[in-house]
Amino acid sequence: MSMQRAYEDLIGRWKELQLLQSCAAVLGWDERTYMPRGGAAHRAEQHALLAGLSHERATAPEIGELLSRIEEGDEQFTPDSAPAVNVREIRREYDRRTKLPRSLVVALAKATTLAEQAWQEAREKSAFETFRPHLEEVLRLTREAAEALRAGGSAYDALLDRFEPGETSQNLKRVFGALRDELAPLVAAIVDSGRAPDASILTRDYPIANQTAFGIAAAAAIGFDFERGRLDETVHPFCSGIGPGDTRITTRYDRNRFAQAFFGTLHEAGHGLYDQGLDDAHSGTPMGDAVSLGIHESQSRMWENFVGRCRAFWTHFFPKARDVFPAALADVSPDAFYFAVNDVRPSFIRVEADEATYNLHIMLRFELEEALVEGDLAVADVPGAWNERFERDFGLRPPDDAHGCLQDVHWSSGLIGYFPTYALGNLYAAQFFEAARRDLGDLDGQFAEGEYGPLLGWLRERIHRHGMRYRATELVAEVSGEPLGHRALMTHLKAKFGPLYGD
Amino acid sequence: MSMQRAYEDLIGRWKELQLLQSCAAVLGWDERTYMPRGGAAHRAEQHALLAGLSHERATAPEIGELLSRIEEGDEQFTPDSAPAVNVREIRREYDRRTKLPRSLVVALAKATTLAEQAWQEAREKSAFETFRPHLEEVLRLTREAAEALRAGGSAYDALLDRFEPGETSQNLKRVFGALRDELAPLVAAIVDSGRAPDASILTRDYPIANQTAFGIAAAAAIGFDFERGRLDETVHPFCSGIGPGDTRITTRYDRNRFAQAFFGTLHEAGHGLYDQGLDDAHSGTPMGDAVSLGIHESQSRMWENFVGRCRAFWTHFFPKARDVFPAALADVSPDAFYFAVNDVRPSFIRVEADEATYNLHIMLRFELEEALVEGDLAVADVPGAWNERFERDFGLRPPDDAHGCLQDVHWSSGLIGYFPTYALGNLYAAQFFEAARRDLGDLDGQFAEGEYGPLLGWLRERIHRHGMRYRATELVAEVSGEPLGHRALMTHLKAKFGPLYGD
Repeated sequence: MSMQRAYEDLIGRWKELQLLQSCAAVLGWDERTYMPRGGAAHRAEQHALLAGLSHERATAPEIGELLSRIEEGDEQFTPDSAPAVNVREIRREYDRRTKLPRSLVVALAKATTLAEQAWQEAREKSAFETFRPHLEEVLRLTREAAEALRAGGSAYDALLDRFEPGETSQNLKRVFGALRDELAPLVAAIVDSGRAPDASILTRDYPIANQTAFGIAAAAAIGFDFERGRLDETVHPFCSGIGPGDTRITTRYDRNRFAQAFFGTLHEAGHGLYDQGLDDAHSGTPMGDAVSLGIHESQSRMWENFVGRCRAFWTHFFPKARDVFPAALADVSPDAFYFAVNDVRPSFIRVEADEATYNLHIMLRFELEEALVEGDLAVADVPGAWNERFERDFGLRPPDDAHGCLQDVHWSSGLIGYFPTYALGNLYAAQFFEAARRDLGDLDGQFAEGEYGPLLGWLRERIHRHGMRYRATELVAEVSGEPLGHRALMTHLKAKFGPLYGD
Repeated sequence: MSMQRAYEDLIGRWKELQLLQSCAAVLGWDERTYMPRGGAAHRAEQHALLAGLSHERATAPEIGELLSRIEEGDEQFTPDSAPAVNVREIRREYDRRTKLPRSLVVALAKATTLAEQAWQEAREKSAFETFRPHLEEVLRLTREAAEALRAGGSAYDALLDRFEPGETSQNLKRVFGALRDELAPLVAAIVDSGRAPDASILTRDYPIANQTAFGIAAAAAIGFDFERGRLDETVHPFCSGIGPGDTRITTRYDRNRFAQAFFGTLHEAGHGLYDQGLDDAHSGTPMGDAVSLGIHESQSRMWENFVGRCRAFWTHFFPKARDVFPAALADVSPDAFYFAVNDVRPSFIRVEADEATYNLHIMLRFELEEALVEGDLAVADVPGAWNERFERDFGLRPPDDAHGCLQDVHWSSGLIGYFPTYALGNLYAAQFFEAARRDLGDLDGQFAEGEYGPLLGWLRERIHRHGMRYRATELVAEVSGEPLGHRALMTHLKAKFGPLYGD
């Protein structure tokens, strides 16, 4: 079999696997938007079947044989060419999937299902002790998985690699440490400034039908294509890239919380623009897929915060908002509104955190989960460690674990090594946005005119269309001209919050 | 391997097949309700994959071997027991699927895809000639399929058997002939009566949000469980039983056509009640599945027409309707409204036909499609034959083929042998409803009080919970006490329309 023929066979199998997984994605979207409650048990069976079929295909020995034949042949694909990238990434995924013993995969699936249920109850009652044995079990199995996956780096690195390929805990510590050194004083200065917006203007009466129309209009304005996607309501918002031409975003409405649905919509639309910008010609292969969770998050964060919370954005949108919500906004000035959507204040809950303090939430989680994985922290000590560090970083002590270490679903789901990608998203976004501003000139002038096409075009050209051609570390260096660091984000935060809270 | 073990193995495989098909059902529901237009091409690929996987499983030689082992063993399951029914029906489906050569299945799939597209264009332009070669090809392949499937009966019977197992064209001719002999004079008498309701009261302004709320309330009142189902909007309404606890119905709203969405909702809710009444313990096996398309249609027609268009139903619902649509109904009397929803008049389009003339539409189609399959009618002669028979039955000549032989999608989709199930639904419904009235006493009194539970409970007990235990012919005889015939339906139609149009 020639290398070319082996490659075509490999790609055919991989596309079928992705197609099968995309069927599960439709089911996943459905169950979080429209599925009647009574359908849950049957849906679980459907998912188990599709997951089993996917697992068979993803770990089929034929994939391994085809990969070896391609890798060990006399000819080689040109580095960074589409076939070379696809082979590299399929190899990575195949190794990851086959390195984990099937018994461990099954044990993790069971343990996380139980742990998620236990977590939900524990959070409601703020009772960490009932969750503790479940987290211990998930952690035990996750560490076992890390050992199986480990290749050179630390155990934590082996987990991180699933979400942010090529990233290391050592590098994260370097960047996060430097970020903290500048961010903590900035947040302290904001708190000490004594200034604060009138945040209550965002909790006035915002009728949901109007919020929906306004959110759709904004998402469409920044370029989300509603012929190739849609926006629905859900409890925990997400974006699902079902396939080429079908990208679905979701948000959550509260009549008295304008910011929740609106910035949630911009955030998910940012994810959606990435998915819609992937190259359809490479669909179903790594070249048509997103680089990493961190890069994906950089797109959502950029549209949510760097664009959606900037003054120029509201120069264009505030008059429209006032038309749509006359009762809520008639007596509100553009400046007051802009300040309100940039309200910075330490708070307990990550998902409600502002643009500045959000990163402190993430770094705290990274610190703890790395210690858990490396055996430097016992599960029983998590609440104490959490609260102690929270007080250090935020100057507040969580009133209970529901407002502390029980607030996130991730650990119960076995998503250990995932949190850093949220902060990476912010860091990447800052570097990309700075580069875009360099290349595109007066971005603020464009935003104030309602022109988001130049930025979107730039993102498509520089990031989206490349799929997984470059690793995140390479991409960020290539696009921004410097390696991952804290400088761009701090520059952005200082430039924004300095004027608002007094330099 | 013991019979029991072989049976369990068979059922395990069959349930997996059904589970896989239920994944495709979610995708099918999605594409007809919410899927963005851009997702169509990817969705077709997803369907092709799932259809292929289903076909493999449904025709796996292991199924045939297990069936043989069970059928040829020394012991046998008790007739009509759940295992015996499941084995009988799985055998039937397995034989049907394996008798068709794969090449023919593929050729039919391609031909019908092309024919449907051609039909859509031809209908828009009312240009039968552009559709003709496609229908010829579909018919040629369908006749080939009929020959492959044929077992004793006629070629048409082999097709009919897919939709209404055990039914024959000979029996249909007998029943339809007798029905026509009494129905045609009834319709003629109605036309000649000179009486007609003021149908315009149903085309006043009915705001869609109110229609939705009213339709949901009515569906819930007759027993559709919205915890285990939902109602959405679509272009061509349908009911999809995705799995236990998840039954989805759809309707189509037009602000100026109250009857379309409302009776469409009752119709689909009738289908939904059947699906919700199937025995979850037998889910994924024939014992947990519907008997036939005709029996399914009997449930939708019963709730739509026998219940939803009866006077007692509106005794309860008309005051509510007036509350929900005050502008449209303030000056309308209950009698005028009742007459309007029972407006009988010959018209060209089947899906818009009233309860009486609907059956004439079906019989015309049956006559023509049987002649096509048996080689007694050439495709080129369809328009002429259609118009001639239409004039015979309705006293009207279609102005063009869009209002004649091009109006339905079925033939282009290869659904030849399907139409009779619509009329069977009406005939079965009449026999079942008469029996229910016998058993339950004052049904009208119950309906007038908004009590639909007794009828639903009776349907569940007598029909739904049995799944495929009985063939349609057995079931109708068992439940109504007489074989399929025209008497009950004509009794119902005369009892209803006599008083309205003058005995």
